Amino acid sequence: MNVNSMTSFNGTSSKNIHLEASHSSNKTHSNRSRLKPLTNVNRTKTKPHRVTNQDLLNPCRSPYVKTNGTTCGLKEIMIGRCQEYQYVKRGLFLTNQPYIKNCTQLYEAFESAVRYKSYCNMNMSTYERYFDLALDGVHVINRAMFWSGTYTIAHAYGANGRNYVTLEDTLAAAMVDGLIWCGKENDTEGFDFFSCPYICKDNKWADFAFWGLASKTFAQLASGEIYVILNGSQANHRSAFRNNSYFASFELPNLRQNGTYRVTKVNVLVLHSPDGTVVERCGEKSLFDLEELVRSQGFDYACEDDPEELILIMCSNKWEARECQIARQALRQTWDIKLYGKSNSNRNSLSLIVFSCLFFIQYYSLKIISGSM
Amino acid sequence: MNVNSMTSFNGTSSKNIHLEASHSSNKTHSNRSRLKPLTNVNRTKTKPHRVTNQDLLNPCRSPYVKTNGTTCGLKEIMIGRCQEYQYVKRGLFLTNQPYIKNCTQLYEAFESAVRYKSYCNMNMSTYERYFDLALDGVHVINRAMFWSGTYTIAHAYGANGRNYVTLEDTLAAAMVDGLIWCGKENDTEGFDFFSCPYICKDNKWADFAFWGLASKTFAQLASGEIYVILNGSQANHRSAFRNNSYFASFELPNLRQNGTYRVTKVNVLVLHSPDGTVVERCGEKSLFDLEELVRSQGFDYACEDDPEELILIMCSNKWEARECQIARQALRQTWDIKLYGKSNSNRNSLSLIVFSCLFFIQYYSLKIISGSM
Ligand SMILES: N=c1c2ncn3c2ncn1[C@@H]1O[C@H](COP(=O)(O)OP(=O)(O)OC[C@H]2O[C@@H]3[C@H](O)[C@@H]2O)[C@@H](O)[C@H]1O
Repeated sequence: MNVNSMTSFNGTSSKNIHLEASHSSNKTHSNRSRLKPLTNVNRTKTKPHRVTNQDLLNPCRSPYVKTNGTTCGLKEIMIGRCQEYQYVKRGLFLTNQPYIKNCTQLYEAFESAVRYKSYCNMNMSTYERYFDLALDGVHVINRAMFWSGTYTIAHAYGANGRNYVTLEDTLAAAMVDGLIWCGKENDTEGFDFFSCPYICKDNKWADFAFWGLASKTFAQLASGEIYVILNGSQANHRSAFRNNSYFASFELPNLRQNGTYRVTKVNVLVLHSPDGTVVERCGEKSLFDLEELVRSQGFDYACEDDPEELILIMCSNKWEARECQIARQALRQTWDIKLYGKSNSNRNSLSLIVFSCLFFIQYYSLKIISGSM
Repeated sequence: MNVNSMTSFNGTSSKNIHLEASHSSNKTHSNRSRLKPLTNVNRTKTKPHRVTNQDLLNPCRSPYVKTNGTTCGLKEIMIGRCQEYQYVKRGLFLTNQPYIKNCTQLYEAFESAVRYKSYCNMNMSTYERYFDLALDGVHVINRAMFWSGTYTIAHAYGANGRNYVTLEDTLAAAMVDGLIWCGKENDTEGFDFFSCPYICKDNKWADFAFWGLASKTFAQLASGEIYVILNGSQANHRSAFRNNSYFASFELPNLRQNGTYRVTKVNVLVLHSPDGTVVERCGEKSLFDLEELVRSQGFDYACEDDPEELILIMCSNKWEARECQIARQALRQTWDIKLYGKSNSNRNSLSLIVFSCLFFIQYYSLKIISGSM
C-alpha cells in the first residue's frame, strides 16, 4: 500500500517548511451517525472487486470487498476493545471499578440481542441485558458531558475521560463506537454484511434500539453538575437544541431528579465555529426553550457562549480561519519574545498593537459591510 | 465503579460555569519507553488483592489482580486492533492498501517470536517476520512524522494519519502501542504476566528487539520530505536531539538515501512548551549537530522553532499557562465581536490593546528580573 500525501511526491526541495493539514478535523458527528436515518454521511466507498461465490455468503472472507453492512471483524473488535478498556485504559484514568468484567459474556449478551434477528423487530429493550452488564455500578459524578452536533470538539475537550466523561467513554459504548451492525434472519452468519437498513416503516424504534437506550442509560448515570456542548453555528441555520436530537429525546428526559445521585445543575456551553455564522447564543430561541425545560425539571442552569479553552481547541483544529489569526499572531509574538528575548521584542509588541488595531478595524468594516451587525 | 470528578460531589450550585482540566495532557513519551531502560515511567500501580492459587498461574484469570507484566488480553487486543485498523480506520483515511491482511497470521508471527522465549535472548531480528508481514508494501510519502520527547503534540498534530503518519499509525505498531509483553520459558502460559524485565545485563539488544526494529523499519518506509518534532524544553536541560534516542539510533541512520523512495528533505520542528524553558533553538547545540548529520547523509534540511499551529495545540492543552493568556484574551475579544457585534467592541479592542501593552511590559520585566534575557 502507499500511504500517499495529498501533494504529489516532490523530488525538489524548498527552503521553508510547509505545513498544511490535508484534512481539517471538522467532524461534528460520530461515525455511528450511520445508524440514524436522515443524516448526511460522508463515507469513502470502495468498489467491490472480484466477487466470488464464497464472497456472496460472507464478503468479509474476501481480501477485497468492503460493504456497507455489518463491520467485518465485529466480534474480535468488540472483545479486543473490551479487554483494552479494562486492562489498559482503566489503569490509566477511566475508572476505579473494583472488578474486571467478562468480555466474552458481554459480547454474548450483545450478540444474542442481534444475531439472527431481524433489524426491524428491534426496540428500546432489545439491548437491555447488555447495558445492565456493561454499565453495572457506574456513576459519573460532576463529569458527565453530553454533546449535540459537536462530536469532535466535545471529545477533544473531554480528553478520553481525563477531563470529562462522554457516553463514548463508557465500556458499553466504547465497545461499538464507530461500528455498524445488523442481524439477519435465516442466514448462516446471522449478520448482514452487505447492507444495514436504517429505516423501518412500521417501527421507528428500531433505529433507536441501541443508541437510544445507550443515551438513556448514560443520562441515568450522570449526577451532580453535568455539561452539554451545543453547536450555535449549525449548517442551514438549524437550531442548537433540536427536539428530535438524541440529547432532547433520550438524555434530558432521563436525568435523575431525586436521590443521592441526582443531577443538580446543567451547564450548557454553546460553540460558534471559527468563520462560522452565529445562529443562536445563550438565552436565544432554542436555547431559551432549553433553559425553561431544564428549570422545569428542577435543575439549576447556566449557559456560556464559547469558553476560551474551547475556542483554543476550535482554532487549533482550524488554524487557517480568519478569526483565529489574531491569536495566532499574538502567540507568534509571545513565542518570539520567549525565544529571542528583548532583541525583536519592542518591534514585535508594537507590531502586535498595530496589527490588533488593523485587524479590528478591518473586522468591523467587514461586519458592517456584510450587514451582520 | 464510580467515575468520580476530582472535585467532590457538590450539592450546592454556583452561578458561573467552572471548567477545569483535571489533567493536563503533557505526555512526552509513548508507552514504548517502558521497554527502554533508564526512562522514567509513571505508572498507576494497583495493589494485588486476594491472590489465590489459580491466580498464581495466570493473574489475568482473577477479577482483581493487576500486574506489571504482560498486558492481560494481549492476543484479543492485538487481533481486535488489527481488524479495526483494516475494516474501520482503513476506510476512513489511513491507506489505500489493496488487500486485507490476515490478522490471525500476523498475531501468530508476533506470538511465535516471543511466547515461551526468554526475554533476554531477544535481538533485532526476533520480530523480523512480523514486520515483514505487517508492513509489506507500505510507503509513506511526504507525510512521515518522527518525534522525540513530543508524543502527545506530535500525535495531535498528525491527527491519526489524517495530516501526518507516525510509526504508531502503521498496522505493525498500532497493534501493540501502549501494551506490555514478555515471554517466559518453561511456563504453561508462555508469557510473564507478573513482571517484565527491562534490563538484560548481557544483552542490551533485548530492549530494542521490538521498538528498535519498528523504528528502523518505519524509517526505511519514509520517503520524500519527512518531519521531525523535537522538544526544545526538555526537563533537566536535556538536549532536543539525543544520541541515545530512538530517533538518533534507529531512524536517522535508516532513512533511504537512494532510489525512487529516497528521502529528500528533513524538516525539523522544535517545540518550546508554554511556561517551559528554552533549552535549545534551531541551529544551536544538539540541533546544530543534527543539521550536520542530516546534510552529511545528503538530505536537505530545514528547521523551524514553534510553528504557530503547534503553539495553538500546545496552548489548547495547557490553556492556563501564562504564555497562552494573551492569545486567549485575543480570542475572547474576537469572539465577543463575533457574538455581540459593535456594541462592546470599541471598548474591547481598546482593552485588548491596553492588555497587550501591559502584558508585554510585565513579560519583559519578568524576563529581565529572572535574568533570562
Ligand atoms: N446516543 C447518541 C447517538 N446515537 C447515534 N448517534 C448519536 N449521537 C449522540 N448520542 C448521544 O446523544 C447526544 C447527542 O446526540 P444528538 O443530540 O442527536 O447529536 P447530533 O450531533 O445531532 O447527532 C450525532 C449523530 O450521532 C448519531 C446520530 O445518528 C446522530 O446523527 C450525545 O450526548 C450522545 O451521548
